[in-house]
Amino acid sequence: MPIELASVAELAEAYAARHPQEILAFAIQEYSPHLAVSFSGAEDVVLIDMAVKLCREGPLARESFRVFSLDTGRLHAETYRFLDKVREHYEIPIEVFFPQPEAVEKLVREKGLFSFYRDGHQECCGIRKVEPLKRALRTLDAWVTGQRRDQSPWTRAEVPVIQTDPTFSSSDRELIKFNPLANWTSQQVWEYIRENDVPYNPLHERGYVSIGCEPCTRPVVPGQHEREGRWWWEDVNKKECGLHSGNGK
Amino acid sequence: MPIELASVAELAEAYAARHPQEILAFAIQEYSPHLAVSFSGAEDVVLIDMAVKLCREGPLARESFRVFSLDTGRLHAETYRFLDKVREHYEIPIEVFFPQPEAVEKLVREKGLFSFYRDGHQECCGIRKVEPLKRALRTLDAWVTGQRRDQSPWTRAEVPVIQTDPTFSSSDRELIKFNPLANWTSQQVWEYIRENDVPYNPLHERGYVSIGCEPCTRPVVPGQHEREGRWWWEDVNKKECGLHSGNGK
Amino acid sequence: MPIELASVAELAEAYAARHPQEILAFAIQEYSPHLAVSFSGAEDVVLIDMAVKLCREGPLARESFRVFSLDTGRLHAETYRFLDKVREHYEIPIEVFFPQPEAVEKLVREKGLFSFYRDGHQECCGIRKVEPLKRALRTLDAWVTGQRRDQSPWTRAEVPVIQTDPTFSSSDRELIKFNPLANWTSQQVWEYIRENDVPYNPLHERGYVSIGCEPCTRPVVPGQHEREGRWWWEDVNKKECGLHSGNGK
Amino acid sequence: MPIELASVAELAEAYAARHPQEILAFAIQEYSPHLAVSFSGAEDVVLIDMAVKLCREGPLARESFRVFSLDTGRLHAETYRFLDKVREHYEIPIEVFFPQPEAVEKLVREKGLFSFYRDGHQECCGIRKVEPLKRALRTLDAWVTGQRRDQSPWTRAEVPVIQTDPTFSSSDRELIKFNPLANWTSQQVWEYIRENDVPYNPLHERGYVSIGCEPCTRPVVPGQHEREGRWWWEDVNKKECGLHSGNGK
Repeated sequence: MPIELASVAELAEAYAARHPQEILAFAIQEYSPHLAVSFSGAEDVVLIDMAVKLCREGPLARESFRVFSLDTGRLHAETYRFLDKVREHYEIPIEVFFPQPEAVEKLVREKGLFSFYRDGHQECCGIRKVEPLKRALRTLDAWVTGQRRDQSPWTRAEVPVIQTDPTFSSSDRELIKFNPLANWTSQQVWEYIRENDVPYNPLHERGYVSIGCEPCTRPVVPGQHEREGRWWWEDVNKKECGLHSGNGK
Repeated sequence: MPIELASVAELAEAYAARHPQEILAFAIQEYSPHLAVSFSGAEDVVLIDMAVKLCREGPLARESFRVFSLDTGRLHAETYRFLDKVREHYEIPIEVFFPQPEAVEKLVREKGLFSFYRDGHQECCGIRKVEPLKRALRTLDAWVTGQRRDQSPWTRAEVPVIQTDPTFSSSDRELIKFNPLANWTSQQVWEYIRENDVPYNPLHERGYVSIGCEPCTRPVVPGQHEREGRWWWEDVNKKECGLHSGNGK
Repeated sequence: MPIELASVAELAEAYAARHPQEILAFAIQEYSPHLAVSFSGAEDVVLIDMAVKLCREGPLARESFRVFSLDTGRLHAETYRFLDKVREHYEIPIEVFFPQPEAVEKLVREKGLFSFYRDGHQECCGIRKVEPLKRALRTLDAWVTGQRRDQSPWTRAEVPVIQTDPTFSSSDRELIKFNPLANWTSQQVWEYIRENDVPYNPLHERGYVSIGCEPCTRPVVPGQHEREGRWWWEDVNKKECGLHSGNGK
Repeated sequence: MPIELASVAELAEAYAARHPQEILAFAIQEYSPHLAVSFSGAEDVVLIDMAVKLCREGPLARESFRVFSLDTGRLHAETYRFLDKVREHYEIPIEVFFPQPEAVEKLVREKGLFSFYRDGHQECCGIRKVEPLKRALRTLDAWVTGQRRDQSPWTRAEVPVIQTDPTFSSSDRELIKFNPLANWTSQQVWEYIRENDVPYNPLHERGYVSIGCEPCTRPVVPGQHEREGRWWWEDVNKKECGLHSGNGK
C-alpha cells in the first residue's frame, strides 16, 4: 500500500534522524513486494545485512525484499566473486540486469572498450548501467540505494533519506527512492560492517573505497576523498553515473 | 569465390606443412570479405600480426580481413585492455559479440555467477560464447582460429589447417574453418611474438599460458600443460568451450 | 651548539603550535651536523621534502642534515624501491643500518623467520631495528622522527614536538628527539604530499597506511585505524617497536 | 669418511645416469654430518624432500643432513614464507646465513639499493651471497646444490653430478660439490613435485621459473628460457652469482 506521494517530503523529514534499519523497515513494510535493494557490490552490503535481519530475526516477513545488481560486464573479478559470496552467505537470490548486446557491440566497434576516458563516462554508463536499471525499475514502486551524503560533497550533499526519484519517475508513475544510509558517514558504515561481521568486497583491503566498474575505479591514498577514486579524469560535479543523475539539480 | 568443398581435405593436406602466414594469405584471398579472424585476446594475436602484414606490406588488399572477439562479460581486465591495445596498435576495428541479457540474467538469478564450477562450463559457455559466436559466423563463409594441436593432446591432436567447420556448418551452408597455427608449437608462436615485437597480453607474464574467461582460467606452474590452466575441475577430454566442440569427434 | 637541556620542555611548549618545517629548521640549525632524520620509507618522506627545501631554497646551508633508514632485511620490495627513489629524487645520500648476522642467524635457526607471530615482535625488532638504530644514534646529538599523536591513541597521544629521548639517552649523554609532525594529522600530512608533489610509497595506493616490515604490516579497510595495520595480533597498548618504546611510560 | 679425491671424476661418471636420490644417498652416507644441502627457496626443494625420505623412511640415519639458505636480505616475501613453510612441513631446521652489516651499509650508502642494474650483479652478490656462503661452507666437507644443466645452456651445460668445488676448495682443503639434479630437466623436477605433493614457492604460480633475489628475478613468458628471468640486463654467459662461478671456466 504505497504512501501518499504528497507526504514524501514530510516523511523524509520525519525519518531524517532515524537509524538506517528503521528507514529500511519502513520501506519494506510499505512497498514489499514491489521494492528492491540496489546492490553495487561495495559497502552497501550493509543494507542487505539489515534487511535480512529485519526479515529473519525481526518483525518483517521472510523474503519480503528483493535485491538486484547491475552487471555491466566490466565489474572487477573480485566484485563478481563478492556478489556470489553475498548470495550464498545470506541465502538470497540476486537478480542481475545485463546490458543489450546491440548497444554494447556498437559502442565497442566504433570507439573501442575504453571510450569513456576520452568521451566521458555518460555514454558507456547509459548502455551498461542506465538501460538495465530502467528494466529493473520497471516493475517496482520503490527502490533502496546505498547513497550517502558524505560520498560526494559535490553531488550528494543534499540526498534525503526518502525522495520521489527525480530521474526515473514518469508522468504516470511516481517511483520512490529510499536512501537509508544518507546521513551515515563512511566511518559508521564500516563500524557496522566490523561489529556485525558483514562480509565485504576484498578490494576494500587494497585501497579501494568507492567501487564501480573496473576501468572507472581506482584506489585512493590515505586522506584522499573516496570520490577521487571514480572517473578521476572528469569534473567532480558531474560524477554521477546516471543512476542518480537527478542529484544536485 | 569459395573453394570447392570437396577439396577441403585435399587442401588441408596440401597446406599442412606450409607457414601459417601462407595459409592465412590463402584464406584471405579466397574468402575476403566474408572471412574473419577470431581473436581471443591471447597469443592468437600472431594471426592479426600476420594478416596485417599481408594486407599492408604484402600482396593483399588493405582492410581485406575482419577481426572479431567474443566479449563474454567475464574476461580479465587485462584482456579488455589488451584487446584495445591491439585495436590501437594495428589500427584495426575489432568487432565484439556480446551475450543476450535474458540468457545471462536467467542463468545468474537461478544459479549464481559461478555455476560452472558445479555444473560444468557448457551451460555458461553456451550463453556467453556460443550464441554470440553464431551471430558472428552468420555472415561469414570462413573463419580463422588460433587452434594448435599442441594446445590439447586430448581434444586438438587432429586439428587440420583447413577444415569444414564440424560444428557450425549447416545443411544449406558449409562454413570453412582455417587453423593456420595448427602445426606450430607454443614455442614457435612465442618465438614469432618476440622476433616481431608483437604486443601480448600481460597475463602471459604472470604464469598464464592459455587465456579464456577470468573465473575459468588460472596460471600453470613450470612444466604443467597449458590446458591444465583451463576448466581444471573438469575431465581433460571435454575441455572445449563449444567454439571447437566438433574436435575429437 | 646544543640547546640547554633544562629547556627542552620549555622549547617543546614554545614550538608546540609551530609548523613542522619551523621545528625542523630549528632542529637543523641547532644540531647540524650531529643530527639526522630517521626515514622509514612511509609518509615521513615529508620531513625530507621539508628539510631539502630549507637547505636548498631556504635559509639553511646545503647538505646540513643527514638521513638514515633502518634496513631490517624484511622491508617490502616496494619500500626498497621507494627508498632509492627518494635518494635519487632529492639527490641525497641515505645511510642504511643493517642488522648483525650472528643475531639474525641465531633467531632464525632457532625460531624460524616468523617467530614474532607467536612470541611478539619485540625480539625480532630488537635485532633488526633497535640494535642498528643504536649504532645510528651513537654519533648523533639529536634525531628527527615522523611520529604523530594521531598515529596511535594508545601509545603516541602525548608525543611532544621536542623531547629528551626517553629510551636512547644515556647517563652521560642526553639525546634530543624532534617530532616535527607530532601535532599534524594524517590528513595534513597527505595534503602536504599532494600539494607539493612529494613522491610516496606505492603501497599507500594499495590500502597500506602505516608501513613497517613486510610480515608485520597489512592494509587496513576504510574507517579502520592505521595502527590496526601493524602487529595486529598484539595488544594495542604495546605496539611500539623499540624505536619509540619510551612512549606512554 | 671422505672419498678419495682422485676418484671424483670417476664417481661423477659412475653416478651420471643414476637417480638424483641415489646420488643424494651416496653424498649423505659419505659426508654426514659434514655435508649440507644448499636451499634457495625454489624448486630445489625436491632435494629436501628426497633427503627427508632417505633419512626417515629410508636407510639413512634420521637428521643426518643439514640444510642452509642464504638470506640476502632481498628475497621475495613469498620466498621467506616458503622457507618457513618447508621448515615446518618437513620439521627440519634451516640454517640461514646473513650478510655483514658493514659491507651492506657501505654499498648502499655509496651506490643505493639497486646498483646492480648499473654495475652488474657481482658486487652485490659478493656481499649478500658469496661471503655468507663462505661462512656456511667453512665447516663442511661437501655440499649439495640444485644445479641442473638445462638451467643455463650458457654456463651450466657441463655441470657434473659430483665435482671438486672449482670455486670454494682451497689449497689445503678440497670441498666436494654434489649436483644430484644435474641431468634432470625442469620437466622432471616438476613432475616429481606434483607426484610427491612437494610444497613449492607460490611465485612459481605467477610466471617465475628461476627464483633468486627479488630485484634480480622476473617472470618469463611462455617459451622463454628460465635464465632470462635472472639478471636480464647482463650477458647470458656471465649469469652466475658467485656460488657457482667456477662453471664454464
